[in-house]
Amino acid sequence: MSLISGTDPRTGQPLPFQVSPSTTADVAEVCEAAQVAGARFAGLPRDERAALLDAIAAGMAAERAELVATASAETGFGQVKLESELVRAAFQFRFFADVVRDGGFLEAAIDHAGSTPMGPRPDLRRMLVPIGPVAVFGSSNFPFAFSVLGGDTASALAGGNPVVLKAHDSHPHTSLLSHAILREQLGEHAPSAGIVFGHQAGVDLVANPRIRAVGFTGSLDGGRALLKAIDGRDEPIPFYGELSSLNPVFVTPDAAATRAQEIGEAYATSMTVGSGQLCTKPGLVAIPKGADGDALVAATADALARQEPHVLLNHGIHASYRAMTDRLESAPGVRTLVKGATDGSRGYAAGTRLFEVDLTELSDVHAHEIFGPASVVVRYEPAALPEAFSAVLDALPANLTVTLQVAAEDAAPLGPLTRIASGYAGRIVFNGFPTGVAVSWAQTHGGPWPSTNSLHTSVGATAIRRFLRPVTFQDCPAAYLPVELTDDATAIPRRIDGELTLPSPVSP
Amino acid sequence: MSLISGTDPRTGQPLPFQVSPSTTADVAEVCEAAQVAGARFAGLPRDERAALLDAIAAGMAAERAELVATASAETGFGQVKLESELVRAAFQFRFFADVVRDGGFLEAAIDHAGSTPMGPRPDLRRMLVPIGPVAVFGSSNFPFAFSVLGGDTASALAGGNPVVLKAHDSHPHTSLLSHAILREQLGEHAPSAGIVFGHQAGVDLVANPRIRAVGFTGSLDGGRALLKAIDGRDEPIPFYGELSSLNPVFVTPDAAATRAQEIGEAYATSMTVGSGQLCTKPGLVAIPKGADGDALVAATADALARQEPHVLLNHGIHASYRAMTDRLESAPGVRTLVKGATDGSRGYAAGTRLFEVDLTELSDVHAHEIFGPASVVVRYEPAALPEAFSAVLDALPANLTVTLQVAAEDAAPLGPLTRIASGYAGRIVFNGFPTGVAVSWAQTHGGPWPSTNSLHTSVGATAIRRFLRPVTFQDCPAAYLPVELTDDATAIPRRIDGELTLPSPVSP
Repeated sequence: MSLISGTDPRTGQPLPFQVSPSTTADVAEVCEAAQVAGARFAGLPRDERAALLDAIAAGMAAERAELVATASAETGFGQVKLESELVRAAFQFRFFADVVRDGGFLEAAIDHAGSTPMGPRPDLRRMLVPIGPVAVFGSSNFPFAFSVLGGDTASALAGGNPVVLKAHDSHPHTSLLSHAILREQLGEHAPSAGIVFGHQAGVDLVANPRIRAVGFTGSLDGGRALLKAIDGRDEPIPFYGELSSLNPVFVTPDAAATRAQEIGEAYATSMTVGSGQLCTKPGLVAIPKGADGDALVAATADALARQEPHVLLNHGIHASYRAMTDRLESAPGVRTLVKGATDGSRGYAAGTRLFEVDLTELSDVHAHEIFGPASVVVRYEPAALPEAFSAVLDALPANLTVTLQVAAEDAAPLGPLTRIASGYAGRIVFNGFPTGVAVSWAQTHGGPWPSTNSLHTSVGATAIRRFLRPVTFQDCPAAYLPVELTDDATAIPRRIDGELTLPSPVSP
Repeated sequence: MSLISGTDPRTGQPLPFQVSPSTTADVAEVCEAAQVAGARFAGLPRDERAALLDAIAAGMAAERAELVATASAETGFGQVKLESELVRAAFQFRFFADVVRDGGFLEAAIDHAGSTPMGPRPDLRRMLVPIGPVAVFGSSNFPFAFSVLGGDTASALAGGNPVVLKAHDSHPHTSLLSHAILREQLGEHAPSAGIVFGHQAGVDLVANPRIRAVGFTGSLDGGRALLKAIDGRDEPIPFYGELSSLNPVFVTPDAAATRAQEIGEAYATSMTVGSGQLCTKPGLVAIPKGADGDALVAATADALARQEPHVLLNHGIHASYRAMTDRLESAPGVRTLVKGATDGSRGYAAGTRLFEVDLTELSDVHAHEIFGPASVVVRYEPAALPEAFSAVLDALPANLTVTLQVAAEDAAPLGPLTRIASGYAGRIVFNGFPTGVAVSWAQTHGGPWPSTNSLHTSVGATAIRRFLRPVTFQDCPAAYLPVELTDDATAIPRRIDGELTLPSPVSP
């Protein structure tokens, strides 16, 4: 078996760190250890679990310099992007510590015994409990925030579940250093966070009977392959995949008339941040025909033309970017507006690309996510609203986000457009660009297939719900109830006899 | 194509009502109509949606006599069971009307714009929205409460989703009458509840691209077949199956010592209610060896011996009951304690069966759900607690319920037993039997595979969560927000800037 090593994307040369792929026996051992340790981890009082999450965040900060240097060598990302990503990853752990302390995520409910039209009802007390070992697949494009130290890990641990991490092949050293932080801070609970390396290990992992759920951020093809492996299990388990999204942006005629320059420049920035390798990159922007739209497109093209080539993450992404942009360039009806220079000698460098197509010619050919600094402008007749909007969305797969750029006083039918948009995406953005996903209570990072296949977000407080299941205790003596379901545990929000009650500040 | 007709289980003779199986084209048409009508239905204000649910409940009450008579002819169930089931089904619609008015199910959250360690955060407002057309498969054993007028229908409609109902072949007439009530009460929204008939129609239904989720109550084999059809879709969708459960009951030595007669009689009742065709039937009861346990088993056997043969639902269930009880009777280590007489001339009549096996001989052979009035007693060494408990649970697939029969002052380690039990089931029952599933806020009817494959309950308030997905509105002008996410809509519980807030009684 050949060793796994990273490559410096700036040069295309292999990096010195090497690790062996995990064997099938390794994977089985790690999963078993995680399950055994996880039973104790699940039993920790909420405040202790929260303290561990805070400690992991602190551990990241302490190892900042080495983590960032290693990730930069393996991903080609610059220090500023990686430092801010690490801040985000640490914040995410502290945020989930707050979510755990809050306790609302337990959805605790108590129905005292009573009578109903069907006869007497027993005492019923419900809360969510950990589902069990969660497989977490690190992404290529966020070595911290969506990898070993990412949101899936944080939300799974916050829910009281052990995790088994599948390191991404492109940043094995970053993954191992990240895993060391988890293990160190988890202390006696260290086996609750296992790690495996290599493609086959990922397949073995989702097939392992101890695994109860899978969190995945990656390509549609990769997601489909894992789904297939899951379909072959005796026991189905939930697969939470964040897979593919074009994140269409729709600029109204009034928005183009009032803010062409501003929107055009912001578009260029948003489609190239992270070298255009963000799952929320605006891959398709609908702009009205006519002078205002032309000005907007020109502003975007000008901004892009001033950019240096971008370094992509790995050989596969680089090769795919070239193939997909070449295909788009020669596709019928497509005009190439920007074709940034690429210096082929510089590792995985890639030039920016801006394409344009008329809405009347928009087809499946233009509706594929391209990882890298490319985007497609779709020109529509300003008079054809809201039909043009529906036509754009109907031509695409569903998305993580739909964005509307509008004017302060906009003549477009914004109510209908908003309602239409919410059928196609999990987040509807006004007057911004979709890149940048805040970690908060009200966030949704997830939409209809193929953007995700779940009814949940993978970012924000409610991401924890993916890794929990309900249990109801019927007529259970108080001594044997989980503490959160006893009558006098009033420190968390609970629904009691149908009525939501807030935490009482003086009680346990 | 042969027509579908019910059979009178009391005689085995066909009933006069006949209906044609739905063709592939029929299914496509019904699904399309449901989706189109569903868009308007989803847009109804919550109070109007709740009023429709109340109206459906009233419609059931108005048609009680015909519904009960028809269902009795098709299922062999008596009037008392069916009337109480219809009360339950109507209650369920009124309960979900309350859930809809309450508004907590929307999980509304508002994060006002602010600053974070990663920079400024936009205004984010999240709530759950309908997922779209839901396929609901009627069960054989609950012609009302888990069929066309059942909980999946109520919770899907409550969530704002259209439904397409797959009528169970065993009660087509009841299904059609039930569907007529839905359509009449839905009025202009009638196409939001479609219906299809026949096996192939069920397969076509889950494969139809307009369907967004499937609710199924039925056999493990049936569930697996539908899962396979779903795996073949371009777009995966959630399958909520309630499939198979043995519902183990564990009687502690002290419970047997103090309440042998009471527990024994209750066991006989619980395993034969609904002719033993309830998904929560206690299919396996662990009883200590020794005189106390012997007395308990004798009480059960006495009560069973006094029972008449039970009429099973249909030919398939009847044939399967005979085959599975015959197999158990001749399985190694099994003692047959009760073998109730069967009058073969009386349609699908079946005699009660009580089997006994030592825990040391318990194996996969004894661990299959049998639909009908049969159950297995497992005898364990009283000294071997809590290991005996774990041994029983490890020998079985996971379950909807685990029950503990305990004494007021019990020497058994009830804390550990409770914790162990919650890993194997969705409801832990103390000093009752698992049959009887109250419709309430804190209920869970669902457990690990194969009892269900979901992280959700199919009974109770939170069943609605299966058919909703989150959407976040970022920096959305107030005029275009859903009313529940505007600052002044304070009539529902919401999480605002991380803090849970209760409804304000004076506001809209």
